[in-house]
Amino acid sequence: MTFENEKKTFLAKIDRSKKGSIDQKAILIIEAINQLDNYYTTSSCSGRVYLWRSTGKKSETEWINMNHDLIHSDFFNLKEKQGTIWLRFEGFILHVACRNLESATIFLVKAKSVFKKSSILSISNKIIVEVKSSEIIEMPFYCNGPLYSGDYTWLVEHINHRFENNWKKMELLKHSIKEKIDE
Amino acid sequence: MTFENEKKTFLAKIDRSKKGSIDQKAILIIEAINQLDNYYTTSSCSGRVYLWRSTGKKSETEWINMNHDLIHSDFFNLKEKQGTIWLRFEGFILHVACRNLESATIFLVKAKSVFKKSSILSISNKIIVEVKSSEIIEMPFYCNGPLYSGDYTWLVEHINHRFENNWKKMELLKHSIKEKIDE
Repeated sequence: MTFENEKKTFLAKIDRSKKGSIDQKAILIIEAINQLDNYYTTSSCSGRVYLWRSTGKKSETEWINMNHDLIHSDFFNLKEKQGTIWLRFEGFILHVACRNLESATIFLVKAKSVFKKSSILSISNKIIVEVKSSEIIEMPFYCNGPLYSGDYTWLVEHINHRFENNWKKMELLKHSIKEKIDE
Repeated sequence: MTFENEKKTFLAKIDRSKKGSIDQKAILIIEAINQLDNYYTTSSCSGRVYLWRSTGKKSETEWINMNHDLIHSDFFNLKEKQGTIWLRFEGFILHVACRNLESATIFLVKAKSVFKKSSILSISNKIIVEVKSSEIIEMPFYCNGPLYSGDYTWLVEHINHRFENNWKKMELLKHSIKEKIDE
Protein backbone atom coordinates (compact mmCIF):
# COMPACT_ATOMS: atom_id res chain seq x y z
CA MET A 1 0.00 0.00 0.00
CA THR A 2 1.30 3.49 -0.76
CA PHE A 3 1.83 5.97 2.07
CA GLU A 4 -1.12 8.01 0.74
CA ASN A 5 -3.43 5.01 0.96
CA GLU A 6 -2.20 4.00 4.40
CA LYS A 7 -2.82 7.53 5.59
CA LYS A 8 -6.29 7.67 4.09
CA THR A 9 -7.24 4.27 5.52
CA PHE A 10 -5.85 5.04 8.95
CA LEU A 11 -7.46 8.45 9.31
CA ALA A 12 -10.84 7.03 8.26
CA LYS A 13 -10.86 4.64 11.22
CA ILE A 14 -12.82 5.53 14.31
CA ASP A 15 -10.95 6.32 17.50
CA ARG A 16 -10.27 3.08 19.34
CA SER A 17 -8.56 4.48 22.44
CA LYS A 18 -9.66 3.64 25.97
CA LYS A 19 -10.81 7.25 26.25
CA GLY A 20 -12.98 6.93 23.12
CA SER A 21 -12.25 10.33 21.59
CA ILE A 22 -9.36 12.56 20.61
CA ASP A 23 -8.30 15.08 23.22
CA GLN A 24 -9.51 18.54 22.33
CA LYS A 25 -6.13 19.89 23.41
CA ALA A 26 -4.30 17.67 20.92
CA ILE A 27 -6.60 18.32 17.96
CA LEU A 28 -4.86 21.43 16.56
CA ILE A 29 -1.45 19.79 16.59
CA ILE A 30 -2.90 16.61 15.05
CA GLU A 31 -4.61 18.58 12.31
CA ALA A 32 -1.41 20.53 11.59
CA ILE A 33 0.46 17.25 11.12
CA ASN A 34 -2.22 15.50 9.08
CA GLN A 35 -2.25 18.39 6.62
CA LEU A 36 1.35 17.58 5.72
CA ASP A 37 1.95 15.16 2.86
CA ASN A 38 4.69 13.18 4.60
CA TYR A 39 3.00 12.50 7.93
CA TYR A 40 -0.09 11.29 9.73
CA THR A 41 -0.83 10.76 13.40
CA THR A 42 -1.72 7.31 14.73
CA SER A 43 -2.34 8.00 18.43
CA SER A 44 -2.11 10.77 20.97
CA CYS A 45 -2.75 11.92 24.51
CA SER A 46 -2.47 15.60 25.39
CA GLY A 47 -1.41 14.76 28.94
CA ARG A 48 -3.31 13.41 31.89
CA VAL A 49 -3.32 12.79 35.59
CA TYR A 50 -4.95 9.71 37.07
CA LEU A 51 -5.22 7.43 40.03
CA TRP A 52 -4.77 3.78 39.21
CA ARG A 53 -4.25 0.37 40.71
CA SER A 54 -3.04 -2.93 39.37
CA THR A 55 -5.74 -5.42 38.41
CA GLY A 56 -3.42 -8.27 39.40
CA LYS A 57 -2.93 -9.16 35.74
CA LYS A 58 0.54 -8.35 34.43
CA SER A 59 0.91 -4.70 33.44
CA GLU A 60 -2.88 -4.20 33.46
CA THR A 61 -4.11 -1.17 35.32
CA GLU A 62 -7.51 0.00 36.44
CA TRP A 63 -8.14 3.72 36.19
CA ILE A 64 -9.89 5.24 39.16
CA ASN A 65 -9.94 8.99 38.58
CA MET A 66 -8.77 10.39 35.24
CA ASN A 67 -8.35 13.99 34.17
CA HIS A 68 -6.92 15.65 31.06
CA ASP A 69 -7.30 19.15 32.46
CA LEU A 70 -6.43 21.26 35.51
CA ILE A 71 -7.53 19.61 38.73
CA HIS A 72 -8.89 20.71 42.07
CA SER A 73 -8.21 18.92 45.33
CA ASP A 74 -11.49 16.98 45.01
CA PHE A 75 -9.68 14.98 42.32
CA PHE A 76 -8.08 13.06 45.18
CA ASN A 77 -11.38 11.97 46.74
CA LEU A 78 -11.55 8.20 46.55
CA LYS A 79 -14.89 6.40 46.40
CA GLU A 80 -13.34 2.97 46.75
CA LYS A 81 -10.07 2.27 48.45
CA GLN A 82 -9.06 -1.32 47.78
CA GLY A 83 -5.44 -2.27 47.14
CA THR A 84 -2.53 0.08 46.51
CA ILE A 85 -3.57 3.15 44.58
CA TRP A 86 -0.96 5.14 42.64
CA LEU A 87 -1.01 8.67 41.31
CA ARG A 88 0.40 9.16 37.81
CA PHE A 89 0.94 12.26 35.69
CA GLU A 90 1.97 11.87 32.07
CA GLY A 91 2.65 14.70 29.65
CA PHE A 92 1.94 14.88 25.92
CA ILE A 93 2.48 11.79 23.79
CA LEU A 94 1.94 11.53 20.05
CA HIS A 95 2.74 8.88 17.45
CA VAL A 96 3.40 10.08 13.93
CA ALA A 97 3.74 7.82 10.89
CA CYS A 98 6.32 9.21 8.45
CA ARG A 99 6.66 8.65 4.71
CA ASN A 100 10.36 7.77 4.82
CA LEU A 101 13.49 8.00 6.96
CA GLU A 102 14.29 11.47 5.74
CA SER A 103 10.91 12.86 6.76
CA ALA A 104 11.18 10.98 10.08
CA THR A 105 14.54 12.65 10.78
CA ILE A 106 13.15 16.10 9.98
CA PHE A 107 10.18 15.56 12.28
CA LEU A 108 12.30 14.03 15.05
CA VAL A 109 14.63 17.04 15.14
CA LYS A 110 11.61 19.35 15.48
CA ALA A 111 10.02 17.16 18.14
CA LYS A 112 13.24 16.88 20.18
CA SER A 113 13.75 20.64 20.18
CA VAL A 114 10.60 20.87 22.32
CA PHE A 115 10.10 17.38 23.77
CA LYS A 116 13.62 16.02 24.36
CA LYS A 117 12.54 12.43 24.99
CA SER A 118 11.08 12.01 21.50
CA SER A 119 12.41 9.07 19.49
CA ILE A 120 11.72 6.68 16.63
CA LEU A 121 9.68 3.66 17.71
CA SER A 122 9.91 1.69 14.50
CA ILE A 123 11.64 1.85 11.12
CA SER A 124 10.57 -1.49 9.69
CA ASN A 125 7.04 -1.75 8.29
CA LYS A 126 5.75 1.66 9.44
CA ILE A 127 8.13 4.44 10.39
CA ILE A 128 6.79 5.90 13.62
CA VAL A 129 8.14 8.90 15.52
CA GLU A 130 7.03 9.22 19.12
CA VAL A 131 6.78 12.74 20.52
CA LYS A 132 7.06 12.34 24.25
CA SER A 133 7.09 14.63 27.21
CA SER A 134 9.54 13.79 29.98
CA GLU A 135 7.09 15.05 32.61
CA ILE A 136 6.06 12.24 34.90
CA ILE A 137 4.81 11.65 38.41
CA GLU A 138 4.44 8.08 39.65
CA MET A 139 3.80 7.85 43.36
CA PRO A 140 2.07 5.46 45.75
CA PHE A 141 -0.95 7.38 46.97
CA TYR A 142 -3.20 5.20 49.10
CA CYS A 143 -2.88 1.84 50.84
CA ASN A 144 -4.99 1.25 53.95
CA GLY A 145 -4.80 4.99 54.44
CA PRO A 146 -3.21 7.96 52.67
CA LEU A 147 0.47 7.56 51.71
CA TYR A 148 0.86 11.25 50.86
CA SER A 149 0.97 13.43 53.95
CA GLY A 150 1.80 16.73 52.28
CA ASP A 151 -0.38 19.66 51.46
CA TYR A 152 -3.06 18.83 48.86
CA THR A 153 -3.01 22.41 47.60
CA TRP A 154 0.73 22.08 46.85
CA LEU A 155 0.19 18.83 44.96
CA VAL A 156 -2.72 20.28 42.97
CA GLU A 157 -0.66 23.37 42.07
CA HIS A 158 2.32 21.24 41.14
CA ILE A 159 0.25 19.04 38.83
CA ASN A 160 -1.52 22.02 37.27
CA HIS A 161 1.86 23.71 36.72
CA ARG A 162 3.02 20.60 34.86
CA PHE A 163 -0.14 20.63 32.73
CA GLU A 164 0.44 24.28 31.83
CA ASN A 165 4.10 23.73 30.93
CA ASN A 166 3.06 20.74 28.85
CA TRP A 167 0.42 22.73 26.94
CA LYS A 168 2.91 25.55 26.32
CA LYS A 169 5.31 23.06 24.80
CA MET A 170 2.53 21.60 22.63
CA GLU A 171 1.84 25.12 21.38
CA LEU A 172 5.55 25.61 20.58
CA LEU A 173 5.62 22.33 18.66
CA LYS A 174 2.46 23.21 16.75
CA HIS A 175 3.97 26.52 15.65
CA SER A 176 7.22 24.84 14.74
CA ILE A 177 5.37 22.27 12.60
CA LYS A 178 3.25 24.89 10.86
CA GLU A 179 6.26 27.10 10.11
CA LYS A 180 8.77 25.11 8.21
CA ILE A 181 8.20 21.39 7.86
CA ASP A 182 7.48 19.93 4.44
CA GLU A 183 9.31 22.79 2.70
CA MET B 1 35.29 7.60 9.76
CA THR B 2 34.35 3.95 9.38
CA PHE B 3 32.11 2.28 11.96
CA GLU B 4 35.12 0.20 13.12
CA ASN B 5 37.19 3.34 13.75
CA GLU B 6 34.33 5.11 15.51
CA LYS B 7 33.89 2.09 17.75
CA LYS B 8 37.60 1.84 18.53
CA THR B 9 37.86 5.57 19.28
CA PHE B 10 34.75 5.63 21.42
CA LEU B 11 35.60 2.57 23.50
CA ALA B 12 39.11 3.93 24.18
CA LYS B 13 37.67 7.02 25.87
CA ILE B 14 37.51 7.18 29.64
CA ASP B 15 34.14 7.07 31.36
CA ARG B 16 32.82 10.63 31.57
CA SER B 17 29.58 9.95 33.44
CA LYS B 18 28.60 11.77 36.64
CA LYS B 19 29.09 8.46 38.45
CA GLY B 20 32.63 8.14 37.08
CA SER B 21 32.63 4.41 36.37
CA ILE B 22 30.58 1.77 34.56
CA ASP B 23 28.03 -0.05 36.70
CA GLN B 24 29.25 -3.52 37.58
CA LYS B 25 25.73 -4.79 36.90
CA ALA B 26 25.79 -3.48 33.34
CA ILE B 27 29.29 -4.69 32.46
CA LEU B 28 28.38 -8.19 31.21
CA ILE B 29 25.67 -6.89 28.90
CA ILE B 30 27.97 -4.12 27.65
CA GLU B 31 30.75 -6.61 26.96
CA ALA B 32 28.35 -8.93 25.13
CA ILE B 33 27.31 -6.06 22.86
CA ASN B 34 30.81 -4.69 22.27
CA GLN B 35 31.97 -8.12 21.12
CA LEU B 36 29.54 -7.87 18.19
CA ASP B 37 30.83 -6.35 14.96
CA ASN B 38 27.76 -4.22 14.29
CA TYR B 39 27.36 -2.53 17.69
CA TYR B 40 29.03 -0.65 20.50
CA THR B 41 27.65 0.90 23.66
CA THR B 42 27.92 4.63 24.28
CA SER B 43 26.35 5.01 27.74
CA SER B 44 24.51 2.98 30.35
CA CYS B 45 22.97 2.87 33.81
CA SER B 46 21.96 -0.45 35.33
CA GLY B 47 19.15 1.19 37.31
CA ARG B 48 19.20 3.44 40.33
CA VAL B 49 17.21 5.00 43.10
CA TYR B 50 17.97 8.47 44.36
CA LEU B 51 16.74 11.47 46.25
CA TRP B 52 17.12 14.73 44.40
CA ARG B 53 16.12 18.37 44.40
CA SER B 54 16.13 21.10 41.80
CA THR B 55 19.11 23.46 41.90
CA GLY B 56 16.89 26.25 40.63
CA LYS B 57 18.59 26.13 37.24
CA LYS B 58 16.42 24.75 34.46
CA SER B 59 16.35 20.93 34.44
CA GLU B 60 19.39 20.77 36.72
CA THR B 61 19.13 18.42 39.67
CA GLU B 62 21.24 17.86 42.75
CA TRP B 63 21.60 14.27 43.88
CA ILE B 64 21.25 13.73 47.59
CA ASN B 65 21.33 9.97 48.16
CA MET B 66 22.10 7.65 45.23
CA ASN B 67 22.07 3.87 45.11
CA HIS B 68 22.47 1.35 42.29
CA ASP B 69 21.74 -1.61 44.53
CA LEU B 70 19.14 -2.91 47.00
CA ILE B 71 18.38 -0.39 49.71
CA HIS B 72 17.55 -0.45 53.41
CA SER B 73 15.34 2.09 55.13
CA ASP B 74 18.40 4.13 56.17
CA PHE B 75 18.54 5.20 52.51
CA PHE B 76 15.79 7.66 53.40
CA ASN B 77 17.74 9.38 56.17
CA LEU B 78 18.28 12.97 55.13
CA LYS B 79 21.26 14.93 56.39
CA GLU B 80 20.08 18.19 54.90
CA LYS B 81 16.48 19.03 54.26
CA GLN B 82 16.31 22.23 52.23
CA GLY B 83 13.76 22.67 49.45
CA THR B 84 11.50 20.02 47.97
CA ILE B 85 13.20 16.65 47.82
CA TRP B 86 11.96 14.02 45.36
CA LEU B 87 12.44 10.27 45.25
CA ARG B 88 13.20 8.77 41.85
CA PHE B 89 13.67 5.19 40.68
CA GLU B 90 14.87 4.52 37.15
CA GLY B 91 15.44 1.10 35.61
CA PHE B 92 18.06 0.01 33.09
CA ILE B 93 19.06 2.37 30.30
CA LEU B 94 21.61 1.67 27.58
CA HIS B 95 22.60 3.47 24.38
CA VAL B 96 23.91 1.33 21.56
CA ALA B 97 25.51 2.67 18.37
CA CYS B 98 24.59 0.47 15.38
CA ARG B 99 26.44 0.01 12.09
CA ASN B 100 23.38 0.57 9.89
CA LEU B 101 19.57 0.67 9.92
CA GLU B 102 19.31 -3.08 9.41
CA SER B 103 21.44 -3.86 12.47
CA ALA B 104 19.53 -1.20 14.44
CA THR B 105 16.23 -2.88 13.57
CA ILE B 106 17.53 -6.29 14.63
CA PHE B 107 18.77 -4.92 17.94
CA LEU B 108 15.59 -2.89 18.55
CA VAL B 109 13.38 -5.95 18.12
CA LYS B 110 15.48 -7.85 20.68
CA ALA B 111 15.52 -4.90 23.09
CA LYS B 112 11.75 -4.37 22.83
CA SER B 113 11.01 -8.03 23.53
CA VAL B 114 12.41 -7.42 27.04
CA PHE B 115 12.30 -3.63 27.53
CA LYS B 116 9.18 -2.46 25.69
CA LYS B 117 10.01 1.25 25.86
CA SER B 118 13.19 0.85 23.79
CA SER B 119 13.45 3.02 20.68
CA ILE B 120 15.80 4.65 18.19
CA LEU B 121 17.14 7.99 19.38
CA SER B 122 18.89 9.00 16.18
CA ILE B 123 19.30 7.82 12.59
CA SER B 124 21.26 10.75 11.18
CA ASN B 125 24.98 10.92 11.95
CA LYS B 126 25.15 8.05 14.49
CA ILE B 127 22.41 5.43 14.65
CA ILE B 128 21.63 5.00 18.34
CA VAL B 129 19.19 2.50 19.87
CA GLU B 130 18.09 3.22 23.41
CA VAL B 131 17.23 0.24 25.58
CA LYS B 132 14.95 1.59 28.27
CA SER B 133 13.11 0.16 31.20
CA SER B 134 9.61 1.49 31.81
CA GLU B 135 10.07 1.17 35.57
CA ILE B 136 9.85 4.56 37.21
CA ILE B 137 9.00 6.16 40.51
CA GLU B 138 8.89 9.94 40.76
CA MET B 139 7.39 11.20 43.99
CA PRO B 140 7.69 14.27 46.19
CA PHE B 141 9.35 12.99 49.36
CA TYR B 142 10.20 15.83 51.70
CA CYS B 143 9.24 19.48 52.01
CA ASN B 144 9.29 21.06 55.48
CA GLY B 145 8.58 17.55 56.77
CA PRO B 146 8.00 14.10 55.23
CA LEU B 147 5.53 13.94 52.34
CA TYR B 148 5.38 10.14 52.42
CA SER B 149 3.39 8.85 55.37
CA GLY B 150 3.35 5.16 54.49
CA ASP B 151 5.38 2.29 55.83
CA TYR B 152 9.11 2.65 55.02
CA THR B 153 9.48 -1.14 54.93
CA TRP B 154 6.84 -1.33 52.19
CA LEU B 155 8.59 1.35 50.13
CA VAL B 156 12.00 -0.32 50.56
CA GLU B 157 10.55 -3.69 49.52
CA HIS B 158 8.77 -2.15 46.56
CA ILE B 159 11.94 -0.44 45.30
CA ASN B 160 14.03 -3.58 45.85
CA HIS B 161 11.42 -5.63 43.98
CA ARG B 162 11.74 -3.22 41.06
CA PHE B 163 15.53 -3.55 41.16
CA GLU B 164 15.27 -7.34 41.06
CA ASN B 165 12.78 -7.36 38.18
CA ASN B 166 15.04 -4.94 36.34
CA TRP B 167 18.12 -7.14 36.81
CA LYS B 168 16.17 -10.24 35.68
CA LYS B 169 15.24 -8.41 32.50
CA MET B 170 18.87 -7.36 31.94
CA GLU B 171 19.84 -11.02 32.28
CA LEU B 172 17.19 -12.00 29.72
CA LEU B 173 18.45 -9.38 27.29
CA LYS B 174 22.07 -10.46 27.78
CA HIS B 175 21.15 -14.06 26.94
CA SER B 176 19.10 -12.94 23.98
CA ILE B 177 22.03 -10.90 22.64
CA LYS B 178 24.53 -13.71 23.13
CA GLU B 179 22.27 -16.26 21.48
CA LYS B 180 21.37 -15.07 18.07
CA ILE B 181 22.34 -11.55 17.14
CA ASP B 182 24.96 -11.01 14.40
CA GLU B 183 24.17 -14.43 12.86
